[in-house]
Amino acid sequence: MTKKDVLVLKDLLGTNKQVAAEIRRELRSRGILCVNLLSSPGSGKTALLEALADRMGTTYRMAVIEGDIETERDAERIRAKGVPAWQITTGGACHLEAKMVGKVLPDVPAAIDFLFIENVGNLVCPAGFDLGESLRCVLLSSPEGDDKPKKYPQAFLTADVLILTKSDLVPFLPFDPDKATAEALTVNPRLRVFRVSALKGEGMDKLAAFFADALARERAGRA
Amino acid sequence: MTKKDVLVLKDLLGTNKQVAAEIRRELRSRGILCVNLLSSPGSGKTALLEALADRMGTTYRMAVIEGDIETERDAERIRAKGVPAWQITTGGACHLEAKMVGKVLPDVPAAIDFLFIENVGNLVCPAGFDLGESLRCVLLSSPEGDDKPKKYPQAFLTADVLILTKSDLVPFLPFDPDKATAEALTVNPRLRVFRVSALKGEGMDKLAAFFADALARERAGRA
Repeated sequence: MTKKDVLVLKDLLGTNKQVAAEIRRELRSRGILCVNLLSSPGSGKTALLEALADRMGTTYRMAVIEGDIETERDAERIRAKGVPAWQITTGGACHLEAKMVGKVLPDVPAAIDFLFIENVGNLVCPAGFDLGESLRCVLLSSPEGDDKPKKYPQAFLTADVLILTKSDLVPFLPFDPDKATAEALTVNPRLRVFRVSALKGEGMDKLAAFFADALARERAGRA
Repeated sequence: MTKKDVLVLKDLLGTNKQVAAEIRRELRSRGILCVNLLSSPGSGKTALLEALADRMGTTYRMAVIEGDIETERDAERIRAKGVPAWQITTGGACHLEAKMVGKVLPDVPAAIDFLFIENVGNLVCPAGFDLGESLRCVLLSSPEGDDKPKKYPQAFLTADVLILTKSDLVPFLPFDPDKATAEALTVNPRLRVFRVSALKGEGMDKLAAFFADALARERAGRA
């Protein structure tokens, strides 16, 4: 989209919620599905995006906004997959805010299908900030343990989708995916749950199909 | 210690830094080594404390303060090892503060050797809050990836010790412990580095010996 198109966002002095609502309206009007990925550091957000790029990159036009405290590393990994990516380095701040996303939007091409936002690695603070997404996904990697949903409830409560990552490590861990799923559903019964290994590919086609379907529903105005 | 002994802490209206300094003075005067454990959710802080209790519990008197957003789970796991534990549930707050620790201290027995504080699982926010510890340990589990020190520099910059956990999973992961160590030392050359598996025992005796030595040095006033 052009700088003019989203000038309104940059001028907004309202709260995060207002800015987020404006971003959501703008992206929906353009038929772009915006997905906010939330998790602890090292749960596999970037690896998941790389694996999605491998599966969806030829059929759909993806773009990625990367949030990190420091370094351009994640954006570089995404660009290496041929997907345009913008790095927001928060310089210490523990989460992304809608206004940070709003500042990047003028650079994001208008003709895309998916805008993925990878939040700062933090299972706590990002949960409180709407970024204008249509889908919020929380990732929980098997090495983190199946006891996390109740210990960090806000992220699971505010998400639409739970992605259990690193399923290839389950045989080596005291991790019960059914227990993690059951506990997450206790916190939030609306959660759609997927089990994947971005590295080995398990469950990735199903997840990609879900995002494709969510895009179709968003565009049909039924999301 | 008695309620009277630490009344001064509860009355303190100063900043976190001042409260932390008071806690540190108090604990040092009693010959207690206070250790603050910092990491992402699921890096293995509680498992590390369980493994330390197995190794040090008969020789040393340990106590543990557990920080979590919700649930008493971690304190229950520690108590099951015969170690007294107090759970601070922050109810949403993303880190512990010195005043929270100060409120628990009156209940902690005076005659202990080690006070371990397990911070809220968060590699970002807890790094900014001194809790009155004499040693700060940052944990990085092998599944989180060897690229984390530069992405989350504050935790590594403010720590005295880096503990690379879940070493038993390294054969199944794209994780290079040497790379993680080298990068962490670039951020903070003062770091003492240990590699452990709390589950399998690897490196745990060496880490326990380090804490015993740190206690001796603290008591000798050379910490």
